[in-house]
Amino acid sequence: MAEAESDKPYSQEVEAEGHLIDSMILPKIWDRIMELGGDFEVLEFRVGRHKKDTSYIRMIVRGRTRENLEEILREIYLLGAVPVRVKEVKVKPAPADMVLPDDFYSTTNNPTYIYFRGKWIEVEDIMMDKVIVVDPEAERAYCKPIREVKRGDLIVVGEEGIKVKPPERPRESTGVFRFMVTEASSEKPATTIIRQIARDLVNVKRAGGKVAVVAGPAVVHTGAAEALATLIREGFVDALLAGNALAVHDIEAALLGTSLGVSLKDGTPSVRGHRNHMVAINEVFKAGGIRQAVEKGVIKSGIMYECVRSGVPFVLAGSIRDDGPLPEVITDMVEAQRRYREALKGVSMVLMLATALHSIAAGNMLPSTVKLVCVDINPAAVMKLLDRGSTQAVGIISDIGTFLPLLAQETLKLKNENSTGA
Amino acid sequence: MAEAESDKPYSQEVEAEGHLIDSMILPKIWDRIMELGGDFEVLEFRVGRHKKDTSYIRMIVRGRTRENLEEILREIYLLGAVPVRVKEVKVKPAPADMVLPDDFYSTTNNPTYIYFRGKWIEVEDIMMDKVIVVDPEAERAYCKPIREVKRGDLIVVGEEGIKVKPPERPRESTGVFRFMVTEASSEKPATTIIRQIARDLVNVKRAGGKVAVVAGPAVVHTGAAEALATLIREGFVDALLAGNALAVHDIEAALLGTSLGVSLKDGTPSVRGHRNHMVAINEVFKAGGIRQAVEKGVIKSGIMYECVRSGVPFVLAGSIRDDGPLPEVITDMVEAQRRYREALKGVSMVLMLATALHSIAAGNMLPSTVKLVCVDINPAAVMKLLDRGSTQAVGIISDIGTFLPLLAQETLKLKNENSTGA
Amino acid sequence: MAEAESDKPYSQEVEAEGHLIDSMILPKIWDRIMELGGDFEVLEFRVGRHKKDTSYIRMIVRGRTRENLEEILREIYLLGAVPVRVKEVKVKPAPADMVLPDDFYSTTNNPTYIYFRGKWIEVEDIMMDKVIVVDPEAERAYCKPIREVKRGDLIVVGEEGIKVKPPERPRESTGVFRFMVTEASSEKPATTIIRQIARDLVNVKRAGGKVAVVAGPAVVHTGAAEALATLIREGFVDALLAGNALAVHDIEAALLGTSLGVSLKDGTPSVRGHRNHMVAINEVFKAGGIRQAVEKGVIKSGIMYECVRSGVPFVLAGSIRDDGPLPEVITDMVEAQRRYREALKGVSMVLMLATALHSIAAGNMLPSTVKLVCVDINPAAVMKLLDRGSTQAVGIISDIGTFLPLLAQETLKLKNENSTGA
Amino acid sequence: MAEAESDKPYSQEVEAEGHLIDSMILPKIWDRIMELGGDFEVLEFRVGRHKKDTSYIRMIVRGRTRENLEEILREIYLLGAVPVRVKEVKVKPAPADMVLPDDFYSTTNNPTYIYFRGKWIEVEDIMMDKVIVVDPEAERAYCKPIREVKRGDLIVVGEEGIKVKPPERPRESTGVFRFMVTEASSEKPATTIIRQIARDLVNVKRAGGKVAVVAGPAVVHTGAAEALATLIREGFVDALLAGNALAVHDIEAALLGTSLGVSLKDGTPSVRGHRNHMVAINEVFKAGGIRQAVEKGVIKSGIMYECVRSGVPFVLAGSIRDDGPLPEVITDMVEAQRRYREALKGVSMVLMLATALHSIAAGNMLPSTVKLVCVDINPAAVMKLLDRGSTQAVGIISDIGTFLPLLAQETLKLKNENSTGA
Repeated sequence: MAEAESDKPYSQEVEAEGHLIDSMILPKIWDRIMELGGDFEVLEFRVGRHKKDTSYIRMIVRGRTRENLEEILREIYLLGAVPVRVKEVKVKPAPADMVLPDDFYSTTNNPTYIYFRGKWIEVEDIMMDKVIVVDPEAERAYCKPIREVKRGDLIVVGEEGIKVKPPERPRESTGVFRFMVTEASSEKPATTIIRQIARDLVNVKRAGGKVAVVAGPAVVHTGAAEALATLIREGFVDALLAGNALAVHDIEAALLGTSLGVSLKDGTPSVRGHRNHMVAINEVFKAGGIRQAVEKGVIKSGIMYECVRSGVPFVLAGSIRDDGPLPEVITDMVEAQRRYREALKGVSMVLMLATALHSIAAGNMLPSTVKLVCVDINPAAVMKLLDRGSTQAVGIISDIGTFLPLLAQETLKLKNENSTGA
Repeated sequence: MAEAESDKPYSQEVEAEGHLIDSMILPKIWDRIMELGGDFEVLEFRVGRHKKDTSYIRMIVRGRTRENLEEILREIYLLGAVPVRVKEVKVKPAPADMVLPDDFYSTTNNPTYIYFRGKWIEVEDIMMDKVIVVDPEAERAYCKPIREVKRGDLIVVGEEGIKVKPPERPRESTGVFRFMVTEASSEKPATTIIRQIARDLVNVKRAGGKVAVVAGPAVVHTGAAEALATLIREGFVDALLAGNALAVHDIEAALLGTSLGVSLKDGTPSVRGHRNHMVAINEVFKAGGIRQAVEKGVIKSGIMYECVRSGVPFVLAGSIRDDGPLPEVITDMVEAQRRYREALKGVSMVLMLATALHSIAAGNMLPSTVKLVCVDINPAAVMKLLDRGSTQAVGIISDIGTFLPLLAQETLKLKNENSTGA
Repeated sequence: MAEAESDKPYSQEVEAEGHLIDSMILPKIWDRIMELGGDFEVLEFRVGRHKKDTSYIRMIVRGRTRENLEEILREIYLLGAVPVRVKEVKVKPAPADMVLPDDFYSTTNNPTYIYFRGKWIEVEDIMMDKVIVVDPEAERAYCKPIREVKRGDLIVVGEEGIKVKPPERPRESTGVFRFMVTEASSEKPATTIIRQIARDLVNVKRAGGKVAVVAGPAVVHTGAAEALATLIREGFVDALLAGNALAVHDIEAALLGTSLGVSLKDGTPSVRGHRNHMVAINEVFKAGGIRQAVEKGVIKSGIMYECVRSGVPFVLAGSIRDDGPLPEVITDMVEAQRRYREALKGVSMVLMLATALHSIAAGNMLPSTVKLVCVDINPAAVMKLLDRGSTQAVGIISDIGTFLPLLAQETLKLKNENSTGA
Repeated sequence: MAEAESDKPYSQEVEAEGHLIDSMILPKIWDRIMELGGDFEVLEFRVGRHKKDTSYIRMIVRGRTRENLEEILREIYLLGAVPVRVKEVKVKPAPADMVLPDDFYSTTNNPTYIYFRGKWIEVEDIMMDKVIVVDPEAERAYCKPIREVKRGDLIVVGEEGIKVKPPERPRESTGVFRFMVTEASSEKPATTIIRQIARDLVNVKRAGGKVAVVAGPAVVHTGAAEALATLIREGFVDALLAGNALAVHDIEAALLGTSLGVSLKDGTPSVRGHRNHMVAINEVFKAGGIRQAVEKGVIKSGIMYECVRSGVPFVLAGSIRDDGPLPEVITDMVEAQRRYREALKGVSMVLMLATALHSIAAGNMLPSTVKLVCVDINPAAVMKLLDRGSTQAVGIISDIGTFLPLLAQETLKLKNENSTGA
C-alpha cells in the first residue's frame, strides 16, 4: 500500500461505503484519481465477505495543486466518496426567475443527500441534470428543473456537503436485471429474456409495485396493440406515457381496422387508407375526447379503450410532427413534462416500447433505482438510453411486433400459474 | 386495345395529361384500376415524343358496381386522372370548431385544384393530411389543419371536382435529383453525391431560391457545427428549423468547447462535463435569450451565432425530452407547427440533417414539389421520410459528422469558382 | 399515339407480351427508351381485361444513331421486349478455360430463351451474372459460372436472339407474396405477416413444393434453434444451407446448453463458457462428423440433429472467420457454391433467416420465380437482398429470436387444423 | 481487510501484478470471485503511485468446495492472477489428427505463458479460441487451430501452470486509443477522431510499425477507393486483406468507371452496367491474374493497382457469394486463414473498413495488443468486433465513403507537415 504522506498540503481524507467492489465503485474512484493526475493512499479497507455485506474504505487523496485536488474531489464525490469531516452544504439564492447562481450543482439520477444544519437530508424527486432547491424552514431539499426556479430560491452550489449514492448492482435480485446490466444486443436468447421480464413484471405487481409503460406508435403499426391492451386489462400497467401518434393509430385500428391505412388483418393497404387516421382524429373531436369516445361507445377496443375502462391514467405529450393532435394531447411541453414526472412518481419498473423520444424523456425523469426495460429495433436508440446510466436498465434490440405478443403470452401464463398454484 | 363498351352502366370517362409514362403516373392508374377489380378502355393516347413533351390519355373506366366504380375513381383521382366532364366541387360547413363533416376530403402533398363555380382554383399552402377550406367570397381555397377549422368553415367533401397533379420526374433537372429519385442507400459514391448536392445548393441560391435547413443535435455532437455555421455565414441558408437540443449543444460548444460534456477538440470527456449543457442554458437565461447572448458578446461562434449575425430566422420547437428549454424555444406544439409552416413557405430546397423528428414534421408541411435532401445514419429514418412520397427527395445514409464538412467544402469551392469565373 | 416513321434508318420493330401493365414491364420499357434519348411509336396495343389476361404490344423503337439504337435494344430486351423478326442467337467459342469471348452475354435471374436453329430454347438453371453455354448437338443451353467454362465452349454473345421473361406480379397468388412485393419495413403488422408466411409454407408443401432454409448463427444465439428444429422435424424443410457457425453453436447448445458460452436457459454467461464452442467442435471431430455424432448418440437435439434424423440434406459452406471448421464444412468455395446450387435446384420457396452472407449467395443462385422470405434485424441486409430483383421476395425487418418461434407456432397450428379438418 | 483464514481447506494463494487498477484487472478478479460464491483475503497490496508504476497484490482465494475453488481459479487465471507457488503446466498427446484431449486449454487473445520445466515460456502467435501445442525439444509453445493438430502433439490441458497477461490500458499512448477504449458511437466528433487516427497511423509508421488494412467492397461502391489507393501509394499500408468483391469492383472501377454498374463519376446507373463486373473478371482471367493485368497495362489505377505497384502483399479470401472468383482469390478457407494469419504477423495497427466478415476473421487472429480501428455504418457490426475484447480497439460508426477521404486527407497533411517541418 502506498506510504502515508497526509501532511502534504493538497490532500483530503475521504471515505466510501457500500458494494464498492462488485458495483465497480471503488475501482472507478481510484481510476478517476489517477486519470486526473492525482494520487491516493489507502488508510483502512474492509472488504465485504458475503454477498450482502458492504465494504468500507478510508483514504487520503492528493492533487498536484489546490485546483487539481478540487477537480478530483468533485469527480469522486459523484462516485460516492465523501470527506471524512463533512462540511455544511452551500446554497445561494437564485438571482432571478429561471436563473441559477453560477456555481450551481447539477444533479445526477442517483440518490443524493445534502449535509444541512448538521444532518444528512435526502433530496426529493431526484432526476438527472436538474438543481437542488433547499427549503430551510421545512429542512427539506427538492430536485427542480431550471424553468421552475424562482428568484430567491436557495440553490445548492459547489460540491461540498453533498453525498451521492451510486447505483449498486443488485446481486440478489431476480429476473432479467440480475444478469443483463447495461448491455444491449440482438444476439441474446430472446424467449428466455422475455420469460424473465414477465417474471419481473409479475413479481413487481405482486409486491405492490407500480409499472409504467412508455410506448411509440410502432406498437400499433406492427400489430402489437392487442398485446399491450391485454397487459393493461390484466392489471400490469399503472400508467401509460405516449404521444399523439400512438393514440391516433390505436383509435384508427379500433374504428377502421387499419394503422396508417394498412389493414392489420391482412397487411394490405386500404382503399383511401391514408385518410383513416384523419377520420379517427375527427371522430374523437366529435365525441369531445378519447374518454368520451369510449364512454359513448365509439371506441370499443384497443390500448386507449383499456386505459379508460381500467382507469389507468395516460399522459399524451404532443410533438412537432403531430396530426391533429387529439384533444387530450398536452401541447405545451413544459406542462407535458410536469405531467410525465407526476405519472412516473413512485414507479418501480418502466417498460419502454419502441420510442426513442418518449423513452429518453422518461429516462431523464427517473432515479437510477428504477428498473428499466427498453425494447427497440434500432440499436442506436437502445444504446442511447443505456448510456444514461441506470444500473437496472436492460436494453433489448428486438421487433416490438413479435416481442410484445410473446411477452403478453408469458406474463398471462405466469399470472395464471401463480393464481391457480396458490 | 380493349373494345369500347362505354354503354355499360357503371363507367366514367376520364383523362390525364402530363409526363404520364416516365413519371409512372399512367401505369399506376391502370394498375390501381385492375387491383380494385375494375376495367378500362383506352379511347385516345398520345405519347410525348421528346423529353419535354407531355402525354395525354382519355379512357373509359368501369367498376363492377356503383360503389366499386366510386372507389376506383377516388383512387385514380389522387393519381391525377380527372373526369372528362368535370363536376363542381362539394363543400359542407364544419359542424363545430375543430370538427369536420364526415366525408371530408383529406389532402395529399401534391398540387391540388378544385373546380369551383366553373373554374379550377389552386389550393393554397398544400400539405399532406389536411383539409381544404373554401372562401366563396374571395373564390380561394386553403389547406388547413383540423385544429384551425372553425364552425361553419366550408370544407371540401367527397372526391368530385378535385384535380391532383401528381409529381412528375424532373428529367431536365440537374444535380442529385436527376438520378436519385426516392432511393436510399449507403452504398452510393458519397463524394460524387455530395458534389451534386453542392451544385444544387449553389444553383438554387443563384436562381433566387430559398433554402431551409432542418437539423438535429448530432450535427453538434459529431463536430459538424462549424460546417453548418459556415454554410449559414456564406448565405446558403434562409431558415433554420430545429429543436432545443441543437441550440443548447451548439451554445455549449461555443462557450465551453464541449458537446454533452465531450471535448470537440480532442474527443475526451471533460471534468464535470455533464454539467456543461446546464451552464449553457443558464447563461442564455441570464442574458435573456440567444439573440441577447450573441449581442452581449457571450456567444461568439457557432450555428446560432451565425443565424443571429446573418439575420437568418430560426425556429426552435420544443419536445418532451428538453432540458431547459431555452427562452426562444416554442413550447406549445400547435404554435410551433404554425411557425415551422411559416418558415417553410416558399422554400425551394430543404436539407434535413440527422433528425427524424423534425424532418418528418417539416416533410409533412411541404408540397411534393420542394427538393428534399435527407441525411441520416439510420436507414429506417431515411426510408420513413422517403415513404412520404416526394419525387424530389433524396435519402442518404451517411454520417453527418463526415458528410457535412465535405458538403461545406464542396459548396464553398463551387461558389468561389463561380465568382472568380465570372 | 405517335405517328409512324418506321422508314427512319435507326429503328427496330419489337413486341412484348405478358402482364405488361400490372407488373410494370411496359412502363419500364417506355421509360428506358426515353431515358436513353430514344423514341417509340405504338403500332398495336391490347390491354388484358381480366386479371389472368395478358397484354400485347407491338411498336417501333428508334435511336438517334445506330449505337444508340443498339444500346436501347440491349436494355429493353432485358425487360422482355423481343424483335418482331427474330434473329438467330450468336455464339463464340471460349478462347481458353475460364475465359470468355469479349462480347459475352451476362445473364439475369429471369427465365431466358435463346433462338437457336429456328426455335426458342429455354436456358437451363438460369442464375444471375453468369453466361450461357450452348450444346449444339443436344440443342440445349445451360447457364454457367465463368469458372466452369472450358476452352471451346460455345458462349452466347451480343443480345440478338435472346428473350427474357421478366417477373410478373402473381396477382392470384395467396399469402404474403400477394401484397408485399419487394418492400421492406419494420413497421408492418408482424403477427399478420407471420400467419401469411405460415400459410404459404403449408400451401407450398401441400402442393408438393420444395422448401429450403438458409440460416445464420443468430438463429441459435437468439434461442430460436428449437423453432427451426421443429419446422425440420415436422417436414417443412427440404434442404438446409448454412455456414460452420450455425452448426457449431447448435451443437454447443445441444451438448452444453449454451451458445457462444451464454446459457440459453437463463441468459447468463457460463463459467469457462468461451471454451464451449471449441468443446463442441472437438466432440464432432472425435465422432468423425456431425452425422456420426448424431448416430452415436452424442448429439441428441437441435437443428443438425433433426436434419440427420429426418434425412434433410444440409450444406455447410466455410468462411474465412470459421473456428474449426467442422468436418462436414466444405472449405473450398467453388465446391461449396456447386453444392449450394445443387441443393437449391427445384425449390419453390426459400426462407432466409438472419444471414446476409449466405442469403445473398443463395439469392444469386435462384431464378426470379422462386418465393423468397428474408428476415433480418438489419435493414441494410434486407434491402440488399431485395435489390437483387426477385418479384416474389418479401423482406421482413424483425428479430429472428421472436419471429421464428411465432412462425413455428403458426405453422404447426395450420398444419394441425388442416389435418384434423380433413 | 478481511481477516486471515488461510488454513481453510479449499483455498489457494494467488498474486497479480501490472496496471491492476486503471485497467480494471483487480476489480474484475474480485468481482468474479464473489460472483462465483467465493471469498478472498488481501495479504499484500501495493498501489502504483505514478502512471507508469504497476501495482501488486497477493491474496488468499477460497471456494465453498474443491470444485468451486477450481472453477474460481480457472476464471481468475484468465484475468491474470497466478498461484504464488506455480505448478508445472500439464500436457496430453492429441489422440488423433484434429482431435484434442478432453480437458484441452482454450486460448484467449492475451499474451500467454506456460510454466514448463521450471520456467515461463511465452506462447507464440497467440490467438483466440485455439490450443497450445508444446514442443519439448525446443522448449517452445505454439498457438494452433484444431485443424493443424496432429496425432501425438502435446496439447496443454487444465489451467495450471498458465499465466495470462490481460490487456492493460495504455495510459501514455497518444492518439485515438488513449480515450476511446472499446466504445462505439455515431455521436462523437468525427473530424477530431479522424485527425487522431491519422496521427496514430503516422506515428506507427514512423516507429517502423506495420499496418494492415482489412476492407470490404463498400469502400469501392461508396467512392472511397481512391482514398485507400492514396494511403497505399503513400506507404501507409503494409498488407491488404480483403475478399473477391473488393478486388472485382475496384478493377471494374479502374476499367469501366463504375462499381456494380453505377458510375462513380456521376452516380447514375450505366447502360448494361450489371455486366461490368463480369467484364472486369473476364479481363483479369484473360491476363492471367491481377498482377499480370497491372503489368500488361490493362489495369491502370485503383487499390489493387497500387498494391501491385508498391509491392504491398494482398490476400483475397473467397466466400460463398463470390462472382468469378478472380484467379488470385484463395478459395479454400483453411488455406485462406493460414495466409491471413501470415499477413497479420507482426502488425502494430489494423484498419478494418466496412466489412464485418473479414474484420471478425482478422480480429480472431490478432493478439489483444494490436491497435484496431473498426469503421462501419452498421452499429451491430462494430459492436460485435469490440466484444472480442481488445483493449486497443476503437469502433467508429460512420460512412466509409465520407470517412476514408477525410482520413486520407488528414494523413497526407500530417505526413507533409512532418517532412517539411524537419
